[in-house]
Amino acid sequence: MTDRYAPLRGIAAALGVDAVALVPGPNFTRVMGRAFHSHERPFVVVVPAEGAPAAIVPNLELGSWAQVGFEGEVFDWRDQDGYRPAFEALARRMHLSSLGVEGQVMRVFVHHALVSSQPGLRVVDAEREISGLRLRKTPEEIAGLEAAIRISETALSELLAGVAVGQTEAEIERRLTGLLFHHGAEDMAFGPIVAAGDNSAQPHAKAREDYRIKPGDPLLLDFGARARGMAADITRTVFVGEPSAEASEVYETVRRANQIGHEITRPGVTAHEIDDAVTGHLEASPYADRIRTKTGHGLGRDVHEGPYVMRGNHQALGAGMVFTDEPGLYKLGAFGVRIEDDILVTDDGCRSLTTFTSDLTVIG
Amino acid sequence: MTDRYAPLRGIAAALGVDAVALVPGPNFTRVMGRAFHSHERPFVVVVPAEGAPAAIVPNLELGSWAQVGFEGEVFDWRDQDGYRPAFEALARRMHLSSLGVEGQVMRVFVHHALVSSQPGLRVVDAEREISGLRLRKTPEEIAGLEAAIRISETALSELLAGVAVGQTEAEIERRLTGLLFHHGAEDMAFGPIVAAGDNSAQPHAKAREDYRIKPGDPLLLDFGARARGMAADITRTVFVGEPSAEASEVYETVRRANQIGHEITRPGVTAHEIDDAVTGHLEASPYADRIRTKTGHGLGRDVHEGPYVMRGNHQALGAGMVFTDEPGLYKLGAFGVRIEDDILVTDDGCRSLTTFTSDLTVIG
Repeated sequence: MTDRYAPLRGIAAALGVDAVALVPGPNFTRVMGRAFHSHERPFVVVVPAEGAPAAIVPNLELGSWAQVGFEGEVFDWRDQDGYRPAFEALARRMHLSSLGVEGQVMRVFVHHALVSSQPGLRVVDAEREISGLRLRKTPEEIAGLEAAIRISETALSELLAGVAVGQTEAEIERRLTGLLFHHGAEDMAFGPIVAAGDNSAQPHAKAREDYRIKPGDPLLLDFGARARGMAADITRTVFVGEPSAEASEVYETVRRANQIGHEITRPGVTAHEIDDAVTGHLEASPYADRIRTKTGHGLGRDVHEGPYVMRGNHQALGAGMVFTDEPGLYKLGAFGVRIEDDILVTDDGCRSLTTFTSDLTVIG
Repeated sequence: MTDRYAPLRGIAAALGVDAVALVPGPNFTRVMGRAFHSHERPFVVVVPAEGAPAAIVPNLELGSWAQVGFEGEVFDWRDQDGYRPAFEALARRMHLSSLGVEGQVMRVFVHHALVSSQPGLRVVDAEREISGLRLRKTPEEIAGLEAAIRISETALSELLAGVAVGQTEAEIERRLTGLLFHHGAEDMAFGPIVAAGDNSAQPHAKAREDYRIKPGDPLLLDFGARARGMAADITRTVFVGEPSAEASEVYETVRRANQIGHEITRPGVTAHEIDDAVTGHLEASPYADRIRTKTGHGLGRDVHEGPYVMRGNHQALGAGMVFTDEPGLYKLGAFGVRIEDDILVTDDGCRSLTTFTSDLTVIG
């Protein structure tokens, strides 16, 4: 039988740490085959470079835990007793002097419980290595992404058919949310961004209850469904009535930058090279001072994961990786435009998983 | 003008630390008046015991950040440059030797960035103290909870009217989700639990695509809407067709335990005393070996927060606190029952914010 921990053991060996730990989150879900939530309760799987794994499990999760077919010792704990004895029992069993953890997932209270039960423990941030195991998507994961994107694009089509001058951002957001679930989303990948007018100039805008769409407004929609555990992430900026000449020109600049991302992507290209080409196009335009973000980020079980598509990341992309190509230009106090596609690197180039048109679209 | 940081400064002084830090999450939202998300980007507000606060802010958030009216220095950083320089600039500005943090919110990569930019920094887990500031709800927060609960109970009524033998758990979950958003949820407070038959015996069950409800099955529904930033959390267990004699008896045992929680709650009672009375009733029943959880947890901006209602927590409750009263009995492989209400401590007793009947209900 395959050892599902072999890649994690390899990371422990490569980093020179005694073990690596997983806490509930995307890596935990992928390795254990079931999603758990941790809230205020520590829940940790420890995989040593060699030998059986061990786990700290909240007692009330033991029923669910029985279904993951765990191979090692389990130290469970009840709320009434606290989790300290479980950490101490784990420490007696494993004798760790160093541990690799997911720095972007594990929280400080778990870190502190590990260190206080194993004084002198060296905690190494192995986020890049552990989450790196999710970089190349399996066929099932790609099918999940496609399902999530299909739901998202169907919802977008139906949403846009009903958008009109006078509606509020918050109203449109609620309709979008309803459509995502109506079309089968198991969750939202993240809180949607629905931003019109000057709000579109904030990359992470919050929909306003009191802003009504005006004629000519840009409407930026950044959202995604979650399906089969995978997250979609798509942005389109449309215009509700004819855009200004400046807005049209900005739109075409962003669109060309987005297209360059599609054109340049193939196995072997680095994340740096993609961002350099995409952002380079924006820099060469008259709107260089409106650049606020990198080109994009990886996409999978998590809505933000590797590969981070930015200058300085010289990681070469390979077939099976998925990332967002989302150049944007943001003029604070005025308006912003972002166009975001989800791109799969294939054996001989790339394929856009998003297929919604990015032609300049006027609605309403 | 009031210093919105005064309570945080008080915590720093009381703990004997130089400052406390907030990262995006419920405390951050309450203090800053706006919700932010952090993903892979460190975002930290540092409030010293005395003097101006400072913040590390991702550059792309500066537009949104301008709206919070921040009073101190801001160290922003761009993805392309990394966040290290911002942490170093903060360290030069603040000279901290100790820092209180939200241990259940701050992640290890931020902890490591703080410590590596300020060698020797003592990081103290001040979760209890910082989140303790949210224990007593304001009238606006209580109104938000009531709105979230109203949406949840309306969705539940409509859902139950359509449940029938032969439906799958997953199908019912999707309908529940749709109803929550239809009735105005801004999000779900957490992934709903929809569990029938033997799945109801797992406190944190996951809905199955392939389990169809059988006559006499218990159907456990644990879910909540989010509205105005506040989270509802309600559980009802109903029966689809006549329950067995054992199931009825278990149901009445749990219901009585839940009622005891309502009866005993008043200002001055401790969390320990409530759990002791509620769980004590279950322990005195023939089903004591089916107890898996404590009585409940606080509820507010977060779906799990203080006060944790369990033995050993001798914290006295006060007016304005809200907690879940959710005793349950779980027979692995067979069935489980949980009944959960959201209880507000008032000046002279308590009031149940949930009003959905807990009488034994047979549907279908």
